[in-house]
Amino acid sequence: MIKLRNIDNKRLMDTFEISSSIGRTENNGLNRLALSPEDQQMRDIFVKWLKEENLEVRVDDFGNIYGKREGKIKDAPSVAIGSHLDTQPCGGRFDGIFGVLASLEVIRRLNDYGIETDYPIEIINFTNEEGARFEPPMLGSGGVSNTFSKEFIYSSKDENGISFKQALQSIGYMGEEKNRIKNIKNFVELHIEQGPILDKEDKSIGIIGGIIGMSWVHVKVIGETNHAGPTPMSARRDALVPASEMILRINEITKQYKGLKTTVGKISNKPNAVNVIPGEVDLTFDIRHKDDVERKRAIEQLTKNFNEIANEYNVEIEITTEWNSDAVHFSTEVIDSITEATERLNYSSMSFYSGPGHDAKYMNSLCNSGMIFVKSIGGISHNENELTADEDLIKGANVLLHVVQKLANK
Amino acid sequence: MIKLRNIDNKRLMDTFEISSSIGRTENNGLNRLALSPEDQQMRDIFVKWLKEENLEVRVDDFGNIYGKREGKIKDAPSVAIGSHLDTQPCGGRFDGIFGVLASLEVIRRLNDYGIETDYPIEIINFTNEEGARFEPPMLGSGGVSNTFSKEFIYSSKDENGISFKQALQSIGYMGEEKNRIKNIKNFVELHIEQGPILDKEDKSIGIIGGIIGMSWVHVKVIGETNHAGPTPMSARRDALVPASEMILRINEITKQYKGLKTTVGKISNKPNAVNVIPGEVDLTFDIRHKDDVERKRAIEQLTKNFNEIANEYNVEIEITTEWNSDAVHFSTEVIDSITEATERLNYSSMSFYSGPGHDAKYMNSLCNSGMIFVKSIGGISHNENELTADEDLIKGANVLLHVVQKLANK
Repeated sequence: MIKLRNIDNKRLMDTFEISSSIGRTENNGLNRLALSPEDQQMRDIFVKWLKEENLEVRVDDFGNIYGKREGKIKDAPSVAIGSHLDTQPCGGRFDGIFGVLASLEVIRRLNDYGIETDYPIEIINFTNEEGARFEPPMLGSGGVSNTFSKEFIYSSKDENGISFKQALQSIGYMGEEKNRIKNIKNFVELHIEQGPILDKEDKSIGIIGGIIGMSWVHVKVIGETNHAGPTPMSARRDALVPASEMILRINEITKQYKGLKTTVGKISNKPNAVNVIPGEVDLTFDIRHKDDVERKRAIEQLTKNFNEIANEYNVEIEITTEWNSDAVHFSTEVIDSITEATERLNYSSMSFYSGPGHDAKYMNSLCNSGMIFVKSIGGISHNENELTADEDLIKGANVLLHVVQKLANK
Repeated sequence: MIKLRNIDNKRLMDTFEISSSIGRTENNGLNRLALSPEDQQMRDIFVKWLKEENLEVRVDDFGNIYGKREGKIKDAPSVAIGSHLDTQPCGGRFDGIFGVLASLEVIRRLNDYGIETDYPIEIINFTNEEGARFEPPMLGSGGVSNTFSKEFIYSSKDENGISFKQALQSIGYMGEEKNRIKNIKNFVELHIEQGPILDKEDKSIGIIGGIIGMSWVHVKVIGETNHAGPTPMSARRDALVPASEMILRINEITKQYKGLKTTVGKISNKPNAVNVIPGEVDLTFDIRHKDDVERKRAIEQLTKNFNEIANEYNVEIEITTEWNSDAVHFSTEVIDSITEATERLNYSSMSFYSGPGHDAKYMNSLCNSGMIFVKSIGGISHNENELTADEDLIKGANVLLHVVQKLANK
């Protein structure tokens, strides 16, 4: 069933080079925002490549591009592979691009040898995964999975007030709703790890169990502003002191819950003058766990602790959940096929859950999905210095080649 | 020796009303920045009032205005009284203004009855006490006490680039260096309390022991920025968590040192994004004690603690003292005369040290000085809502009347 062992390394690298030249920044990164002229240029080349491989090309009403390679079984569901070609404004050359170009290489390789599969294979480039131009991220996959409504997606505006819909029309990638992917068996996304785990553990391939659930919780601490000089310590209602206790508590709770990650990334203090007692502090913490129940229990416990701290310091608090995103658990069918592939190829690997979200997160609601990660040096991502060694790109593409052959047959 | 018991209440209030109309804001506060057209208008009226009382008026090279009432003893040193007529941009009607106008009322009262004193009495309006237009505060008293050089003061610029010297010339209050106050016995400053102590304790008069010493200490905590999702808790060098420990430590140390006040008023966090581990936190704390040795010991102890915390969390720290101002202890001669006056007048009073600085701080280096505080409702100050009840203004002025009669005789 696995007829081809390796992709064509040089061709993958050459294709990658072309992508790296479209929207190139001074520091060898990419600025290829979704639906920008650079994105258009990349899409045009990508469509040309798909057609050269005799794929049936479709564009849907979110601008997602599909290239379908028919299988032996009539009207069978597809094995879909791909990711996204858009980048952050100072993004790297790898990110999701690698997943799309490696998927193309897999199809080219199958074509090289005229290998037929039982099920069709579809390559996908999703629109606006980054969320850097249009918020929120993952609008293309969020659209086809009905996570977001068409109205919601179309009305998202960039910082110049241009809507997603206008931008889509202006680059000529407004397709039809009937072109959205349907009748789909699997989705497999190859992506660089946007984190340091593989690099730190010196493993080539990440076998991704899912995407961890996360919440952003905002805490407003309301005390009383006063002059630092005259106000006795006992008469103060300093908002920053209890906020600091809360920050420590948010950090310490991770010792109680295995696998829990918490971060207070954002804090603002008012009026923020050296000799004025802080009257109001806003902090937002990010809390992640692959088990939603554990995450929610931890938030509940923190809420209780915050109330105790607020009482102790005689301040008011308001706690608001800004964002909740439950964990996604990928299909064992896909996970097993990735594991098998790494074993057969003799690549070092490890299993873990992804912190960041990816298109596969939404696609998992449509079909059995999964993700393959490759090492990103230093865990650097969303940065012009993002770098994955050629050797690791090739390994990732080879794993995808095996996985596709496995899932698209039998 | 104390021949007059009370000032003329109505006249004090009427004079006060006139001041409250010059630079009045919509919300009944004052916007009378130092050396502004409003300050000029107030000065012109003030000089007119001084001349009406047959005082010998002088203006020095910092724009400080003096009005001298001769005493019986030839060439004797003066008892000086006064404060400042300038305000914050959204300032109150009371602040230092009250001290100047009550001093004028004291002189008017002595004149009403033709009371002669042994020593001369001089009333002073100091330039730019607020520091709201020209930094630092207290430039007028800082100039005559040689705390600041003439060059330093003249070159201070407002936000429009206008220098103190230019502004002084433009309003016609550039006087002569020989007019600076010399041959001075005492300086007594009556002021509203810029804090809540008298209001909270329900006392009319504050007998001020001095001005507490203070330092501003800046702590930079340098960790490492990383994505909140993938980075394991154990691999983090989050700058905000140790910074929070430091904030708690800064707060707790006040329990060890009686009379110590600490405030972390200012904090900044980089990059301050919800899902990014903070890489750098800057915080500045304000620390005050009337005993300089205690303040310095506390700073030393905190420095030690900060290093321990930094070690524990594997972050770097840089500690810089931004400002040190040692405590000022007022003259027992003046303090005793204030205490006597409140007792004779049967006013409730309490003794404490001032948190904020005042012109008396610098004058204390020239002569035996002291301060009388009156209650400010809710401790509100530097605010259009600043308010002292008429009754308390009158009490303050009566105390000053007694103190002047005491110090200017024998």
